[in-house]
Amino acid sequence: MNTYYQASLQEGDNWLSPEEALHCARSHRSRIGDEVELVDGNGHRGTGKIKSITKTDVVVSVSAVVEEALQPCERTWICVAPTKQMERTEWFLEKAVEVGVGRVSFFYSQYSERRALRLDRLQRIVIEACKQCRASRFPRLDAPVGYLTLLKEESFAYSLAFAHYTTQPLRSLREFALESTQAVKLIVGPEGGFTDAEYTVALHEGYEGVAIGARRLRTETAALVGCVVIGEYCNC
Amino acid sequence: MNTYYQASLQEGDNWLSPEEALHCARSHRSRIGDEVELVDGNGHRGTGKIKSITKTDVVVSVSAVVEEALQPCERTWICVAPTKQMERTEWFLEKAVEVGVGRVSFFYSQYSERRALRLDRLQRIVIEACKQCRASRFPRLDAPVGYLTLLKEESFAYSLAFAHYTTQPLRSLREFALESTQAVKLIVGPEGGFTDAEYTVALHEGYEGVAIGARRLRTETAALVGCVVIGEYCNC
Repeated sequence: MNTYYQASLQEGDNWLSPEEALHCARSHRSRIGDEVELVDGNGHRGTGKIKSITKTDVVVSVSAVVEEALQPCERTWICVAPTKQMERTEWFLEKAVEVGVGRVSFFYSQYSERRALRLDRLQRIVIEACKQCRASRFPRLDAPVGYLTLLKEESFAYSLAFAHYTTQPLRSLREFALESTQAVKLIVGPEGGFTDAEYTVALHEGYEGVAIGARRLRTETAALVGCVVIGEYCNC
Repeated sequence: MNTYYQASLQEGDNWLSPEEALHCARSHRSRIGDEVELVDGNGHRGTGKIKSITKTDVVVSVSAVVEEALQPCERTWICVAPTKQMERTEWFLEKAVEVGVGRVSFFYSQYSERRALRLDRLQRIVIEACKQCRASRFPRLDAPVGYLTLLKEESFAYSLAFAHYTTQPLRSLREFALESTQAVKLIVGPEGGFTDAEYTVALHEGYEGVAIGARRLRTETAALVGCVVIGEYCNC
């Protein structure tokens, strides 16, 4: 069964947007009577059948809409510096959606490799990935901000962690997540690393340095493994 | 500190291979006296200094070689059907190396999307990823085999799991890994799914169907998340 995005999902007749109608009619070659599901990105899922279809207009008759409960992984907030090769960041985003992250923020720090981001393109990746993995709740995607702004942003509502590759012993993200009583906000450093001053200010703001895996992970790998580990262990 | 691959690692003088010498001399612009480390792919790590360097020849004087213990994640065996888009399989392989998988096999089943694989190219991805993440033990990479051959291969030595997206309730891979007394061999299905017959024969051969995550994961995502979850939970 194919899944489509319908922002204003309701019981009864739903006219798909032009993009979704194209996807349904052309890419999936759907026909009248096919069973489909619609999601609104806010946790609602509707199931129904195609009532009418042309190459540009699709009407889905939705018989039932349910609101799905927020999963623990959907509370996780991952903050990551965009990578030099943009496809690595895009890859991370697609996978983070599949494993169920709740919010993704991008930031710039001193050794950031990239400052330009096309948020509209990233938003489309989010929607396509959500449809592919049948997610009814889409993660929030924030416009990039500076590192100090990011550190302070809504930090009161989260357990604060900071992933930084070092040969010094740090508590593992697993242990950190297991003991968290709030959702986790995890910051993953840029490819060029953090400066000592950036590290110090994070500690001062209440973040704990944590280790992800035994090996030196790439930025996008650390961010994705972070999503998986927090989703597995955090019970907030 | 940069890491290079040296198959016949030894204490004393080591002549790097032409590929590694090029990487060291040109890409990293190393100089005499720079500290580097060498790994042999079999769990040995040597630390030393560059003794002589030209554009094509590099000699590293290694002061000490240590053998590193096998980590639990390095016992994991992931079997995956190559994806239609080859870059998805290559991406999986790079990330699986970073999180520390022990062995990767490819297989063909009825709905496999791809049959051609360039194993030499995949082997280079493994080596580059190992150097990047400083792994001293490289995963074993097997040439593709048919599904039935794969099912039977060395299955006596592993706890056998089979990841298959279904809406029916299955035990999670987490629970499966937690209760494993042996290393885990995990089979992840092709993009087109398994046939009922393929599913049945896997059960008959002693594999247990397990669920990875709550969402419908792409093949390469399921394989990678499988590596992370087994590495986190399996204590064999």
